[in-house]
Amino acid sequence: MEVPLEDIYHLLESNQLNKLREILVDLQPVDIAELFEEMSKEQSLKLFRILPKNLSADVFSYLSSDKQQEIIENITDEEIRNIVNDMFIDDTVDFIEEMPANIVDKILQNTPSDIRNLINQFLRYPENSAGSVMTVEYLSLKNDMNIGQALHSIKRFGIDNETIDICYIIDNQRKLVGYISLKKLIFLDDDVPLIEAMETNFVSSHTTDDQENIASNFRKYDLTSMPVVDNEDRLVGIITIDDVVDVIDQENTEDMQKMAAMVPSDEEYLKESVFSLVKQRITWLLILMILATFTGIIVRTYEEVLRSTIVLISFIPMLMSTGGNAGSQASMLITRGIALKEIELSDIWEIFSKELRVSIIIGTVLSIVNFLIIYYLSDINFSVSFAISLSLFITIIIAKVVGSTLPIIAKGLKLDPAIIASPFITTIIDACALIVFFLVCTHYLHLA
Amino acid sequence: MEVPLEDIYHLLESNQLNKLREILVDLQPVDIAELFEEMSKEQSLKLFRILPKNLSADVFSYLSSDKQQEIIENITDEEIRNIVNDMFIDDTVDFIEEMPANIVDKILQNTPSDIRNLINQFLRYPENSAGSVMTVEYLSLKNDMNIGQALHSIKRFGIDNETIDICYIIDNQRKLVGYISLKKLIFLDDDVPLIEAMETNFVSSHTTDDQENIASNFRKYDLTSMPVVDNEDRLVGIITIDDVVDVIDQENTEDMQKMAAMVPSDEEYLKESVFSLVKQRITWLLILMILATFTGIIVRTYEEVLRSTIVLISFIPMLMSTGGNAGSQASMLITRGIALKEIELSDIWEIFSKELRVSIIIGTVLSIVNFLIIYYLSDINFSVSFAISLSLFITIIIAKVVGSTLPIIAKGLKLDPAIIASPFITTIIDACALIVFFLVCTHYLHLA
Repeated sequence: MEVPLEDIYHLLESNQLNKLREILVDLQPVDIAELFEEMSKEQSLKLFRILPKNLSADVFSYLSSDKQQEIIENITDEEIRNIVNDMFIDDTVDFIEEMPANIVDKILQNTPSDIRNLINQFLRYPENSAGSVMTVEYLSLKNDMNIGQALHSIKRFGIDNETIDICYIIDNQRKLVGYISLKKLIFLDDDVPLIEAMETNFVSSHTTDDQENIASNFRKYDLTSMPVVDNEDRLVGIITIDDVVDVIDQENTEDMQKMAAMVPSDEEYLKESVFSLVKQRITWLLILMILATFTGIIVRTYEEVLRSTIVLISFIPMLMSTGGNAGSQASMLITRGIALKEIELSDIWEIFSKELRVSIIIGTVLSIVNFLIIYYLSDINFSVSFAISLSLFITIIIAKVVGSTLPIIAKGLKLDPAIIASPFITTIIDACALIVFFLVCTHYLHLA
Repeated sequence: MEVPLEDIYHLLESNQLNKLREILVDLQPVDIAELFEEMSKEQSLKLFRILPKNLSADVFSYLSSDKQQEIIENITDEEIRNIVNDMFIDDTVDFIEEMPANIVDKILQNTPSDIRNLINQFLRYPENSAGSVMTVEYLSLKNDMNIGQALHSIKRFGIDNETIDICYIIDNQRKLVGYISLKKLIFLDDDVPLIEAMETNFVSSHTTDDQENIASNFRKYDLTSMPVVDNEDRLVGIITIDDVVDVIDQENTEDMQKMAAMVPSDEEYLKESVFSLVKQRITWLLILMILATFTGIIVRTYEEVLRSTIVLISFIPMLMSTGGNAGSQASMLITRGIALKEIELSDIWEIFSKELRVSIIIGTVLSIVNFLIIYYLSDINFSVSFAISLSLFITIIIAKVVGSTLPIIAKGLKLDPAIIASPFITTIIDACALIVFFLVCTHYLHLA
């Protein structure tokens, strides 16, 4: 449903609030939240207060942290209590983590002690763990119930749109023993024991499991939710697929940032300050720049080669950039394969032999084209043209082999393939390309 | 549930098939499918035939195309009919698309005509469109039913584990008018009209919509399923979140491959032939190599500068690679932001001014460090050290500004930012770095 933004502003400014409310209830909460981001403080507060009670917590959880803070600072304790009561615990925790200390205090003072305890427990789970991603709003049933009792218990618990359709079944010690889908439940007779109807082959995770592994289990088993258990196998929460989609996006962004030589950050670009953008980038740039000074040492070692045939210099940039591109291609494919769990340490020999064959074909084609360009178009003599093309051929083979095996070796050494993948490899290949080039020039062309 | 692989082989070889079947029914279909991949043709067939009928289609849909073909070629027409009848249409279509023509014929001959028509319809949807991703197994109800009739209709339709928990509601022309969740349905009284209980503010997609846009709507609205309608707004299928997760993975892989200068492919690395790996990579390598010959022309133009002060050459690799890294960082962040719909064309000035400030800070720090290294550690005179550091400073500013704005301009020109992002930018920045370097050398050092 598309409503012109001006209409909403107009209704708000002219105080036609009932009419505005009628429009709002037909919108999705996330679309309502987007309206706030363009509004002044006064407009935001006015709009927030006309939202029906059952919508306001939902809309609030979609607001940016800045807007959330602005609203919390200006509403009554009573209103804060309503929001916190209606929000999902995991959304509340996400929101609290972004607030300054005085706001956190204000919120926690208005939170009932049972919810406050839960919030504190969540805040203690390690970042990116199952515990920090899970939600505690789910349907759980006792294993000594029958279907009739189970339905009664669900009716009492109350379910809303966001409750997942799978009921988890626990024993007297709260240990997870099985699950049953709501749709299976409703078509069974009331006196069937739950224990006979439930499914027992479930995939679960532990509170401290890493979110990346959880995402890959969701992929593998096509799950829409997954139970989370503690050290004693007691059910403590569930993870739902919509949170896993966020995890997947976040992990992909982090991998891409690492491949582009940055410290990963999950903040949106437009919301990052100049200073934090600098911080994210400068460390790796400095490290790589200092490493690149070694390429200078290599060049200075062979200065005499260049002095004798100065035209050789003009091919160094092409050699380095083609080597870098060839290596990045291989390292990117392997790093991505590792991230998606398609490639394991044991595949290293297969990859080595495959890349060797790929690089021989690519190297042959590229060096022939390169030879033709140099010899016929650039008016360079045969032996120099040949020496440069030979260097290119060897560089491509080294680039592909290093680019493909280094991420796997990194994985084997428990390092992050994404960090090794792109920036480091280019620097290594730059150095290799220069050494190959000067060796070929000295030995084949007998320079220096 | 973990079962040692040897046990399964042993049971299979010693023909203890009942015992084996008991173990298999407790495993997840995807885990059973993994067993097949390591087996011989004879073993695979034997194992496939002892699977309980309700499991075999599920397991089959998780097999690799090679295994699927092996099995189809060796089972009876009756068995093929059973598989096709039990598989979901979208899985059947995925599987048929990978089979050679003779196998496709064999399958379609054993498919009832209604399913065959559906399959043909699916095969006509454009690649990566909503139509090609959707499934046709879903619950639909008529808008003139009451709750009791709706439940009765659902019971008759039959639901299994994979059916989604949302019922879509259509009118007499099959037009989509609303939806209701199964869990809401079961707690309402039998005589409530469906039309009063249903939700009408739904997010839907059209059969020809691109999967990337659909994935971003799933993200935005935290959906677990989405209805798909045709040109007349008639409901023709639904898209479920597990397929969207596959779409997200696929789109991310494609973006990463484009950024690493490759033609995108969604085949797993280990399954690609050497020839198709070469094909995926060689075009861009050739284009970029030929473009890089321009850097050679720049160097040859300023050959005299280098001849007079040959030590200058040794800083070219460092200058080019630092510029490349600085540019890649910026272009990666912006490209990712565009892919996640966080950045739009209208943000270009904000990004330009932000990157200008970021690059001035980073450029200052890097060129000071660079100056100290060259002047104090490499025994190079002051003016040369200063010239190189000044070139570095200017190069970083150009790299950041070009790297950040080019992807947005590409987007504005309806080109793919991911292709522009990495490989092209590095080549452009290489050329800029060289020009800056030679201009600084000629004007500041008065060389040539």
